[in-house]
Order: sequence, then structure tokens, then C-alpha cells
Amino acid sequence: MTTASVCTIGDEILIGQIVDTNSSHISRALNEQGIRVTRMVSIGDDHQAIVDQLREELTNNEIVIVTGGLGPTKDDITKKALGELSGSRYELGNLEQRRIVCNILHSRSLDALDINLQQAVVPDTCEVIPNRKGTAPVMVFRFDGTASADNKPSSVRFGHPCALYSLPGVPFEALGALPDVIQDIRRHFDLSPICHRTLMTYGMAESALAKKIEQWEDSLPSDIHLAYLPNQLTGIRLRLSSYSGDPSVQEARILAQIDRLKPLLGDLLYAEEDTTLESAIGQLLRDTGHTLSVAESCTGGMISHLLTTVPGSSEYYLGSVTSYAMPVKESLLGVKAETIKANGIVSAAVAAEMAEGVRKATLSTYSVATTGWADAYGDERESAGTVRVAVSGPEGTRTARFNYRNDRKRNIERFAASALNELRKYILNSLNNN
Amino acid sequence: MTTASVCTIGDEILIGQIVDTNSSHISRALNEQGIRVTRMVSIGDDHQAIVDQLREELTNNEIVIVTGGLGPTKDDITKKALGELSGSRYELGNLEQRRIVCNILHSRSLDALDINLQQAVVPDTCEVIPNRKGTAPVMVFRFDGTASADNKPSSVRFGHPCALYSLPGVPFEALGALPDVIQDIRRHFDLSPICHRTLMTYGMAESALAKKIEQWEDSLPSDIHLAYLPNQLTGIRLRLSSYSGDPSVQEARILAQIDRLKPLLGDLLYAEEDTTLESAIGQLLRDTGHTLSVAESCTGGMISHLLTTVPGSSEYYLGSVTSYAMPVKESLLGVKAETIKANGIVSAAVAAEMAEGVRKATLSTYSVATTGWADAYGDERESAGTVRVAVSGPEGTRTARFNYRNDRKRNIERFAASALNELRKYILNSLNNN
Repeated sequence: MTTASVCTIGDEILIGQIVDTNSSHISRALNEQGIRVTRMVSIGDDHQAIVDQLREELTNNEIVIVTGGLGPTKDDITKKALGELSGSRYELGNLEQRRIVCNILHSRSLDALDINLQQAVVPDTCEVIPNRKGTAPVMVFRFDGTASADNKPSSVRFGHPCALYSLPGVPFEALGALPDVIQDIRRHFDLSPICHRTLMTYGMAESALAKKIEQWEDSLPSDIHLAYLPNQLTGIRLRLSSYSGDPSVQEARILAQIDRLKPLLGDLLYAEEDTTLESAIGQLLRDTGHTLSVAESCTGGMISHLLTTVPGSSEYYLGSVTSYAMPVKESLLGVKAETIKANGIVSAAVAAEMAEGVRKATLSTYSVATTGWADAYGDERESAGTVRVAVSGPEGTRTARFNYRNDRKRNIERFAASALNELRKYILNSLNNN
Repeated sequence: MTTASVCTIGDEILIGQIVDTNSSHISRALNEQGIRVTRMVSIGDDHQAIVDQLREELTNNEIVIVTGGLGPTKDDITKKALGELSGSRYELGNLEQRRIVCNILHSRSLDALDINLQQAVVPDTCEVIPNRKGTAPVMVFRFDGTASADNKPSSVRFGHPCALYSLPGVPFEALGALPDVIQDIRRHFDLSPICHRTLMTYGMAESALAKKIEQWEDSLPSDIHLAYLPNQLTGIRLRLSSYSGDPSVQEARILAQIDRLKPLLGDLLYAEEDTTLESAIGQLLRDTGHTLSVAESCTGGMISHLLTTVPGSSEYYLGSVTSYAMPVKESLLGVKAETIKANGIVSAAVAAEMAEGVRKATLSTYSVATTGWADAYGDERESAGTVRVAVSGPEGTRTARFNYRNDRKRNIERFAASALNELRKYILNSLNNN
């Protein structure tokens, strides 16, 4: 299997100033091509460290993708390090990238300074893939005979055919250049495919789920691998992978295993692709033309926020009321003072009136509501970590209760995800009944 | 200077399914202690790769921090690799962690299964730092004489004193364990005294801010270092650090520099400690007994969510309305149909009516509202990336307009932060006038 290493260069990463998101996107794209990423490495803006690290990565991998260190300022030294690594004797200007640099600066009403134009100057040992989204070009260094007739191979040897791709560090530019890089890789390497399938589950802890599907897992063929990928907001992703064999045969074998697994998962399973609860709900609503509103208390806007991160959510999401203060529950949602008094603020009755109130105010098909104690402020009826969820719709109003530990930020997320999951199950049930 | 390496273990990172945020947080915490992170590495769930990589990191660094690979399921193999690396001959149960595991499961009304209890079993070569936030303990392996009298050092040698800390991969648990790990590092390594001061700014891009304070920065004494730490939601943190000398003397010298800097920053400065806009606003409101409500459109609940992540926010935050659909703007916020028709949905007039409407509905002292195009759906009046913000309160209603690029998720955050900053400035001005 073709292997790759993904390297990030920049002191700002090593001091924890920014989170490296490029490596994840690049690895995902490589993985989809059946390339196994063996390692991700982040190193600082240090010439010798860059040369040494990239030499090691090229020794151990066919493909090395580097991001960062190509900006116009003084601390960006990747290009010089790549020149040394590849045995470059001189640099030359790339006319196409120079024109792009001038156009970009012109469109921002800036003059092209020397430090800008210098970005279009590259070592003689590389090919350039023009970068239309930014001023730094993508440089490709080919070693040990991976160059085609019209490409200049480096004279440096690593004992096996390999190539290094240097991309800009700005995520927007790095991701913009990625399709061209993948295309170049496909042209120059003989790739064997990987096969993955992902199932999304919500509603059971990792250990309990592992126990539930233990027999099935133990019976998996040795060339099909299972991974548990838990996430607070999206539940546990189950990923089945095969790293060898004919891809269509392997896919069919994985699908056969999934068919055996699905009855064990029941309504824990909410999607057979990598997605989120809010996207899955959005899909259900879009497919059926129904609408949604939200009433929040302890979740403080999180449910509404999650729903509206989905592009196109304005098609089905009408709006929400977050009622932290009791008078707001009464004035905007129509929750009755006596309901609160008789049942407590964190109660099924209050959650139900909230859900019904927002549904009435917005005229939505469905609504979901939360009331709970995210942290220390429990009362005599319910302790911190408890949430009541209500879902209202054409089938009436249903409530549920969940109890977690005492941790504000985590509980806001858990409460929101639990509410979305109750909403999902209600909608599915409602659609099945009609 | 003491050096460290931060390592992440897990196939889910190498295939790009999740973004590694732990490494960034850990590096930042190490950096604040004056420890230089030389490299971050992510490797897969492969026994030999883990052993080889960690051996190399320990050879080159005093401190190695590892996250991931400690879950209860079968694909997590870090513990076995750490056992081999440290020359462990047997495993033993840690009673304190076992009790924590049982308590956590009990609080979730779950039985402690064998695979759960197995998490409290560790190699005999390690010390345990109990992890109160999760079931996997923090394991500390000490090499070459870094162990104190009551600690068991590993018999494996790396030629210099070094230690490896193994943390859970779940971000909440990893970050929860971090303070204890840092404390342990401070006890076992001879770190030079550190002095940091942080200023929080919002409202100016990094390059413009750097230009604005250039003269001041150039005049800083050579032993006082300035770092720019930009963040989408909290603005740019300016951190002044000293890594040598008497800490109380150094602190006084840093404070003197800050006194010179503050007049240059003006109302860009919103706090002299590491905090967030929503916490700074909460502090202002709590101190003065005023209250707040929110009306959101394009930000979809994000502002409300940010405000309610602050513990104790129920003291001043009353509630919000998120009005995605136009009828909801009219019914719940009282925005007039003719205002929308005459000015467009993304307009100062609509933002103002939203802010005034929610303030009236909740009877809050202040309110803030947003209406904008987070992504592709601009109209003939305003393009995607534009938001109108209105703040309403005793001094009347003020509006502002911001324009960013076309990126839904980023714009939701930028819009929310811009609105919070306008709200902060309004409140400050209002308090100064009274």
C-alpha cells in the first residue's frame, strides 16, 4: 500500500497558538485514495529540523505533503530547506505564479512588493502547480524516477520512488490546492484502494455498545477492521475498513457485515455515512417538507446553534426561544406559572409546555424543548446534571429525562445532543406512522 | 531550556476523521511554563510504531506527553506499548482509579463491566495520577533518575532524565488532567521561573494591531517577549512573558510596559487577564445588576450559546429569540413587515427592531441583535459575509455593519464575536455616562 506522511511547519503550531486543521483534511483526502498516512508531524521554523524531518519522511514514505512556512515574512524558511533537501543549485521565477501574485494583490488594491514577487521564485529542482487561491505556489519535488519525461527529477536519492508536495499553510489556500495535488498523485503513483464504511450511533456509551456487539465483532473476518470513534455531539461512529483485496469485493463483504450488525443496533443507528444528528434531522425534514422550532433553557442556544450550522437549514428551521429567566418562559412560551410551581422548573410538565408553546408561536410541524440543571444549581426535586426533554408534533408531546454528571460545558453539549436524538426518534416514528 | 514532544495516538487522526485539538492545548500549557515543544507527532494504533516513536521522542526530549489510545475497547493499545517501552513485567490495579471508574459508571446508572475495570489496571513501571473526569488514568513513566524516593523509576535508560505522561484522548479528559500533569512536571523538572501577563483585545486584525503598537514593541527590553495569539471568538491575546530573573521584579517590569501599552490600545482592550468577550460582558452586568437579552438571525443561537457557557450567567441573561423565518421575526420580535420590505432583511432598521423587540419582550436592560448572510444566500442589497448588529439599551439603539468573506461556519463565529464586542462597548459607554 502506498504510504504518506503529512508535515506541518510553523512555530505558531508548536506553541499552541493555532490548531492544525490542514493535516486532518489532507489525510482524509489521501485516505480516500487508498493511501495510508503513517504519521503526521509538526515542526518549527528551524532550517535543520525541517531538512532532517523531511529527509526521514521521504526515506519512509512514497508521498510527503508539507504545509506551512511559505509566507512572505522572514520567519518562513521552508522553501530554502526544500532547496537544500533536493540539491537545488539555483532558484528561478515561475511566470504563471508571478502573474497570479500580481493579480491577487491588484484585486486587493495593493502594490506587488519584492517580498510578494519573491513568492513566485522557486528552487530549480521543483515543478510548480499554480495556486490560484494565494500567492505561494505548490511545489512538487520528485525523487528516484517518479518524474515523467518533461519533469525535472531531483538528483537526490531515497532508494525508492517518492515525491514531496509543499502547500501553503493558510487553510483556505491549502485546501484549495488539494484537488490538484491529489490529481498529480494519481498520475504518478500506482494506488491500491482502501474501503471504509461508517455507521453513526447515538444513545449508548462506548463500553456498553462494545458489549452489545461483542459477538458480532469477534466474528469479523481478520481483514475487516472495526474502530469506535466517540464524539460528545455526534455519538459513536463505527468504522469498518479493509486495506487489501479487490475494492468492490471488499465493499460487498463489509456491507454484508453491516447487514448483520444493523439489527443489533436498532434505533441507536441514525446514519450509514459520516454525518451529525443535526444533519440527519435536517435531511428528514427536507425530504418531507416539515419544519422545526426549538425552546431552550439549560442548553442556552446550543441546539439552535447546531441546527443552523447545517447549510440550507433555513428551509426547515423556523426559530427558537431561549428562556433562561422564568418570566420569559411565561411571556414568550406561554408556560403557566402554576405548572412551574406544581412540578418544579426542571420537570416533564414544564418541558412539554415549552415545546408546545414554541410550536404554537412558530407554527412548526415539530418542536423540541429542554429544561435542566447544567451545573451546580440543582433544586430539591432534581440534581445538577439532569435534563428534561420534550418533543412535540402531530403525534402529541413526549418527554424524556437524562442524568449526567456536574459539568456545565459538557452538559450543555450532552443535553443538546440527547434532545436532538429524542427529536430524531420522534420524527422517524411519526413518519413511519403516516 | 527544557524540551518536550507531544504525541497523539489513534488511527482516527491519521485517516483525517477527527482534528487533533489536544496537542495544541497541551503545547500551549507547556509553553506557558517555559518548556519548548520541539515536535508534535500523530501515529496510528500500531504497537511497534508507538514503541519506536515514543522511544525516539524520549531520546530527544525531557518530557513526552502522549494522548489517546486508552479507551476500553479493543482497538486501543497504547497501554501495552507503554508497558513494553518501559520494561514492565506485570500489570497491577490502581485502587483509586478503580473507585473513580465505579463512581462514574454508577452516576450514569451503568454497571462496571470488566472492560471498564480493566482501565484501572496499569503497568508496574508507572505511577498513576487519578483522572477524575474519566475512566482512563494518567500514567507517568519516569526514566533515568527523575523518580522521587517513593516512586518507582523504570529500569530503561535514555541517557538523560526524562518522563512520559500518558493522557486519555477524549479532549475533555485530556484537558481535565492537564493541570495535574503540569504540576507534576513543575515538581520533577527544574524549570526557570516564568512570568506572564495577558491582555485581551478585540476589533483589529493582527497586522493592523502590530503596526499600531510597533514603536512600543520595538522598545521592549530584550528579556520581555511579546506574542500575538489570535482567536476567532476572543480576538487577539497579547501575551508578555519573561523567562528569567526574579519573578516579582519581572512582573513589575512587565506591568510597567503594560501601562505604556494601554493608551495605545484604547477600547480594543477588553480585559487584563485571559478571558472571553462573553465573560467580560457577564462581569460588567453582574457588577452593575443589569440584565441582557438577545435576538439572533444568521448567528442562529451562537451568541446565546456563548453567553450561557459562562457559569452564573442566569444572574443577568434573561433569554433570546432566534428568528430564522420571517414570520417569527414578526410574531415574536415585533419586526414590522414594511421595515423588512423597505430596507431588506439584512439592514440596520431590521437589526434595530429585533434588538428593541426582544428587549421589550424580556424587559432586559440591554439587548443585542444580528441579521446577516452567513453564506451564499446574499440578496441584491447585501452580499454574503455581511452582518448588521444592533445594540439597544437606556442610551437608545445603535447599529453597526461588518463584512467578512463567504464561509458559513466561520462567519457565524465572527458575527457573534463582533456583536458581543459592540454590546460590550455600548455597556461600557452607558455605564460611563451614568
